[in-house]
Amino acid sequence: MLPRSFPVPVSPVSNLSCLAIHTQTNKPWSLGQCIDAYSRAGVRGISVWRDVLSAVGAGEGAKMLKDAGMVVPALVRGGFFPGVDGEARRKAVDDNLRCLDDAAVIGAEMVVLVVGAVPGMALSEARKQVTEGIGKLLDHAKATGVKLAIEPLHPMYAADRSCINRMAEARAVCEVLQNPLVGIAVDVYQVWWDPDLETEIALAGRQKTLFAFHVCDWRVNTRSLLTDRGLMGDGCIPIRTIRSWVEATGFSGFNEVEVFSEDYWSMDQHAYLARITEAYLSHT
Amino acid sequence: MLPRSFPVPVSPVSNLSCLAIHTQTNKPWSLGQCIDAYSRAGVRGISVWRDVLSAVGAGEGAKMLKDAGMVVPALVRGGFFPGVDGEARRKAVDDNLRCLDDAAVIGAEMVVLVVGAVPGMALSEARKQVTEGIGKLLDHAKATGVKLAIEPLHPMYAADRSCINRMAEARAVCEVLQNPLVGIAVDVYQVWWDPDLETEIALAGRQKTLFAFHVCDWRVNTRSLLTDRGLMGDGCIPIRTIRSWVEATGFSGFNEVEVFSEDYWSMDQHAYLARITEAYLSHT
Repeated sequence: MLPRSFPVPVSPVSNLSCLAIHTQTNKPWSLGQCIDAYSRAGVRGISVWRDVLSAVGAGEGAKMLKDAGMVVPALVRGGFFPGVDGEARRKAVDDNLRCLDDAAVIGAEMVVLVVGAVPGMALSEARKQVTEGIGKLLDHAKATGVKLAIEPLHPMYAADRSCINRMAEARAVCEVLQNPLVGIAVDVYQVWWDPDLETEIALAGRQKTLFAFHVCDWRVNTRSLLTDRGLMGDGCIPIRTIRSWVEATGFSGFNEVEVFSEDYWSMDQHAYLARITEAYLSHT
Repeated sequence: MLPRSFPVPVSPVSNLSCLAIHTQTNKPWSLGQCIDAYSRAGVRGISVWRDVLSAVGAGEGAKMLKDAGMVVPALVRGGFFPGVDGEARRKAVDDNLRCLDDAAVIGAEMVVLVVGAVPGMALSEARKQVTEGIGKLLDHAKATGVKLAIEPLHPMYAADRSCINRMAEARAVCEVLQNPLVGIAVDVYQVWWDPDLETEIALAGRQKTLFAFHVCDWRVNTRSLLTDRGLMGDGCIPIRTIRSWVEATGFSGFNEVEVFSEDYWSMDQHAYLARITEAYLSHT
């Protein structure tokens, strides 16, 4: 752990009651293995990635989750709206409609949207297409009762994964659509560097668009843009400070651990899960 | 090269007269080798990195540059102001004073500042220390006649290299210091994703703080945070569009090619230089 010169204004979390883990964090595990292990570790929240759900089917997955008494903040992930032509964009919308259906089946509160980007397409055009794409999901979101959470992604993903890289741009989409089912997923990994973060979190609280809070850490010598995230305490993100901003808005949802890491994926996943809960209790 | 769906509003550059190359682009070469090769290729601009300059000494370097008729937009790089204690910060200022001296000796128009960051220090505190640090250089900048150009670095460098990650934050420092010798170096690699880029470039033009323009490209599947930059045309940055914004302000400085790339460093550097000038003419 790094020495910290900034104030740490809030205590760490006191127990696991608000902890949820993204299945992708334990990528080597199936949905069943995640459910079993999380339950035994006292973790009741699970955000389900589509790959592990499709391996068993949404109906069976829903039964497994319900039997274990798991709470599901999110099905992850929809999005990828921008496309070079209308056909590509229609396919993206169709895929998101199916994602909403699956989310409803497993009782997920929201679908997390990684909104997409197309290399060579102006980011301003891509953002327009994102707003249009989400707009086409609103009726179905209402019908299924599932929220849509735009996750701003770090600017290092602007080329091909997300044309929305700060909370301000996610807010702009929310302000256009003005729908209680459209909000923002704040992932500390993506936005920790943003000087406007505290202000935007407070604003999202007032606008009732703060739907989710994801935690992990930024390793100082990050070796890969995609799969070198740290556990809380491994890096330099002031996680407790950011959590205090989130909680100051009245947010009472889960703290969702979402870590992509070749190093951690190569560990014994039970030993890793013990490190996750310990890192959560000590550094979140 | 990627298909581009965004408009390309300006023609590519018509000749090499505004091309400058950073010596680090040809990292395997010494200052002498860079000067010889650039001269023979018809490149008259060279931004000199401190490592190749210190290998020969500033006086000898100055003579070599002058004899070859090279123009030097920048000595690269100063900065790294934030420190955990006063002693660390004083050392940083001293190093920057020496950098200004060397810049004056070789006739560089400016020193480029990579402002620094300290893992575990709040970015807001680091930015305060940056402003203070640059403030301590102003008298010497005036005495030497060398400008100070703050380069906002991509947010993926926020942990330990730069607490200034957008033009807006660089502008904030300029607005505090209000000194004609303090401005901004715009590197497309760092800021291309920023939705406020066009506005900020125009504003920097009006504030007379647009000191430098650096070009390279963002590879869509970037493999390393540090040394996988592309040549112009290798990636997805709308370089010509951004250049048109820069030129619309009246900017008439060099287009400085600054590429860090293990792939390109491993090539024969003469063959690589030919690719640089070709990429410059075709995609800048």
